[in-house]
Amino acid sequence: MSDIKKKIYKPSPVSGFPEWLPEVRMVEQRWMDVIRAKFESYGYVSIETPAVEELAVISAKGEDVDKEIYVIERLQKDEDDKSEARLALHFDQTVPFARYAAQHFNDLVFPFKRYQMQKVWRGERPQAGRMREFYQCDIDVVNPDHLPIAFDAEMPAIMWEILSTLPGMEHENIQIRVSNRKILLGLLEALGVTHEPERYTRFIDKLLKIGEAEVSIGLKQNLELDGLDHNLANPILELSQIIAAPKDFYGLLRDFIARNDVIARSASDVAIQSFEEGISELQQVMDALAHLPEGAVVADLSIVRGLDYYTGTVYETVFVEDPTYGSICSGGRYDDLAGSYINKHLPGVGISIGFTRLFDRLRASGKLPIGRKCPTDILVSPPREEAQIGVAYEAAQILRNNGFNVEIATQRKFDKQISYASKKGIPFLWLTEDGELKDLSTGTQSKADLKILTPDSLNFNESA
Amino acid sequence: MSDIKKKIYKPSPVSGFPEWLPEVRMVEQRWMDVIRAKFESYGYVSIETPAVEELAVISAKGEDVDKEIYVIERLQKDEDDKSEARLALHFDQTVPFARYAAQHFNDLVFPFKRYQMQKVWRGERPQAGRMREFYQCDIDVVNPDHLPIAFDAEMPAIMWEILSTLPGMEHENIQIRVSNRKILLGLLEALGVTHEPERYTRFIDKLLKIGEAEVSIGLKQNLELDGLDHNLANPILELSQIIAAPKDFYGLLRDFIARNDVIARSASDVAIQSFEEGISELQQVMDALAHLPEGAVVADLSIVRGLDYYTGTVYETVFVEDPTYGSICSGGRYDDLAGSYINKHLPGVGISIGFTRLFDRLRASGKLPIGRKCPTDILVSPPREEAQIGVAYEAAQILRNNGFNVEIATQRKFDKQISYASKKGIPFLWLTEDGELKDLSTGTQSKADLKILTPDSLNFNESA
Repeated sequence: MSDIKKKIYKPSPVSGFPEWLPEVRMVEQRWMDVIRAKFESYGYVSIETPAVEELAVISAKGEDVDKEIYVIERLQKDEDDKSEARLALHFDQTVPFARYAAQHFNDLVFPFKRYQMQKVWRGERPQAGRMREFYQCDIDVVNPDHLPIAFDAEMPAIMWEILSTLPGMEHENIQIRVSNRKILLGLLEALGVTHEPERYTRFIDKLLKIGEAEVSIGLKQNLELDGLDHNLANPILELSQIIAAPKDFYGLLRDFIARNDVIARSASDVAIQSFEEGISELQQVMDALAHLPEGAVVADLSIVRGLDYYTGTVYETVFVEDPTYGSICSGGRYDDLAGSYINKHLPGVGISIGFTRLFDRLRASGKLPIGRKCPTDILVSPPREEAQIGVAYEAAQILRNNGFNVEIATQRKFDKQISYASKKGIPFLWLTEDGELKDLSTGTQSKADLKILTPDSLNFNESA
Repeated sequence: MSDIKKKIYKPSPVSGFPEWLPEVRMVEQRWMDVIRAKFESYGYVSIETPAVEELAVISAKGEDVDKEIYVIERLQKDEDDKSEARLALHFDQTVPFARYAAQHFNDLVFPFKRYQMQKVWRGERPQAGRMREFYQCDIDVVNPDHLPIAFDAEMPAIMWEILSTLPGMEHENIQIRVSNRKILLGLLEALGVTHEPERYTRFIDKLLKIGEAEVSIGLKQNLELDGLDHNLANPILELSQIIAAPKDFYGLLRDFIARNDVIARSASDVAIQSFEEGISELQQVMDALAHLPEGAVVADLSIVRGLDYYTGTVYETVFVEDPTYGSICSGGRYDDLAGSYINKHLPGVGISIGFTRLFDRLRASGKLPIGRKCPTDILVSPPREEAQIGVAYEAAQILRNNGFNVEIATQRKFDKQISYASKKGIPFLWLTEDGELKDLSTGTQSKADLKILTPDSLNFNESA
């Protein structure tokens, strides 16, 4: 030991960069395993992209995300650094995927179905609930020139399976809300809105937060500015408020159209055609989702999503009892994924779980099934005679080969071994000397044949 | 479609940040799965730390890694940024683990056995073979005040199991080389080297690269500078060249001591005691590893490792036919892990696989068992009648519940479906209309009962 007094730098958590204790991390791994298995069960393949992209790649999309971008640079720069491209941490997985699809276009087989579960980084201002590092779990499918609408239905079907089975989520009341942007945008154009429809959709997006009256006022102001009849706010509002079960959607839309002859009188055939196309696409998606439990998925015509690369189907997912918490799983269809990087037309559809935000919500509310602090199933208590330790090693190896996770106790005293196992939540103790297995939850202890001891024979829940 | 000509930014790979095609990524996932399962089978629990640490945390260790550190900052900074701590990407997993153990000390149960499989970043100068982003797979165990030597033997035992079973590694001839720094450093001190022993070990570390003659010259120069007999280079060299199987190690060491009475004549009892302690510790480690296949593990007294926080056992792992490629799995024992961050004494031992470097070596040499381009086991060919698509959805869902990964073909033509499956390496086709399963590798096709079709019943290798 050094005589010099140690210089200690006491670290504190870095705001916005969450980190879990082992018992929480074990649940996080189970979530990741569930998601991965579901993605793969539908044929999606994993890809990983580097944490960084060239800044020029990120900027090529032309979105206003500059404020959130983290750039990296070497602490000690030299001449080489100047000649290299500037690198930035990715802030989502869509831009890296687009770049990947373009760069490896000739090596991929289409339709290309990929999933991606990586951390992303956003330089948000530090404040409660805003994370600067978090996992996203994305699936996307892309195909040159034309992508069948069947994939638009697959997205929410997969996500419903996942969100309703994640450990701790079983009793959460969640709902996936689906729309097709062509419907609302088609209506606006049919009514005479010929530019910047987002001036209208911006209000509709906030229907839940600011209420019908406020939205109506906003719509009317814009209609007047556009020289249009402010009463047109009514059909816009009426459409936006349609929320329908898959089987009811089509009938409700037809009723709406029948009630509003202003649509039939539209001067724009193109707009009406797009409007009807959106209805037809959404109907196909709804039909394919009709088998899901009641309330799992609804058509919600107010959903538009902010990002303007979506062109058709759009998704959001909410906690039914807490819709203003925001969407936990969102996405949509885009006409062209990688157009900024390659001269190909690559339409696609994708959806993404805001993993860490969702996980942390359940963690903070005490809903995660947090159990053991380690994966060990059996703690092997070695013989009292130290020279006999080899017997413990053999026992441990047999148990591992049988499928158990096993540690050999390094505590000499039996009560210390029991205390270690109980603090870590290890369910069983193997007493080498007696050839007996002790169930630490019940305290029962009995002779057992090591060679036929398997997780199945013990019938224990390995995640408990 | 827009009339405006698209502005295209053609991306190129970022040097030092590897990225794999889906079929390579699938093997990488299998490697990760093997490693995780083995770590857990010994009771190690996963932790993840953020990609970043405060720069002050990284610098607290006082190592000369500044050149390799990447700092991050927001592209558009504001006042808030100045008041916050500077953040840097972690360059290994030891520093973050030390910080984690200190920060969460009161919430952890000791001995704390953790594994960590994350990317790390090093701002190396861009050159072939040098990666700037790569995975490391670490295990460490720490315990306050005292950590049993049994864990020093567990590290190479686990790594041997992993390295000899990773897909593609089965025929690689690898060897884990173990030493204990107390032996060589104890000898140097016993011979009269009282300061900066790294002036000597630096040469010994290069024995393989520069050869015995060069090392001897270096040792002699230092001995003369230290006013010592240059013939003392002989016992130093002789010790460093001891490479012994576990069962032979102790005898060889005793012979060496008997031959060199200069050791018995040492004026330093402390040095001799440390020397003997090292031998005793290494003997215990070797004894516990004697069951491994011949050549898997050897005592190699030339191993010292560069990092000066190692204090006892040290490990390196080499390809026997290509030892100068460098170590693919290294580590050792340290007296105090988290002393820079907390006023506790926390000895530990750890080992780390340089995952990406190893994986990429096998990839580049064509040794990885690269197979399918997606995880899909069965492609469902839907009925010809589009209205009957529901039957295909039902079939797919039954097969998924039985444990298969399943896609429904979106190609209308049968030959297009076959072509898609064969390009992606999907092994089976389910013909919904005929109720038949087609094995695409043999071309055979036969009636099958969907409900009893399982991966086991098909007896197919899911990784093929």
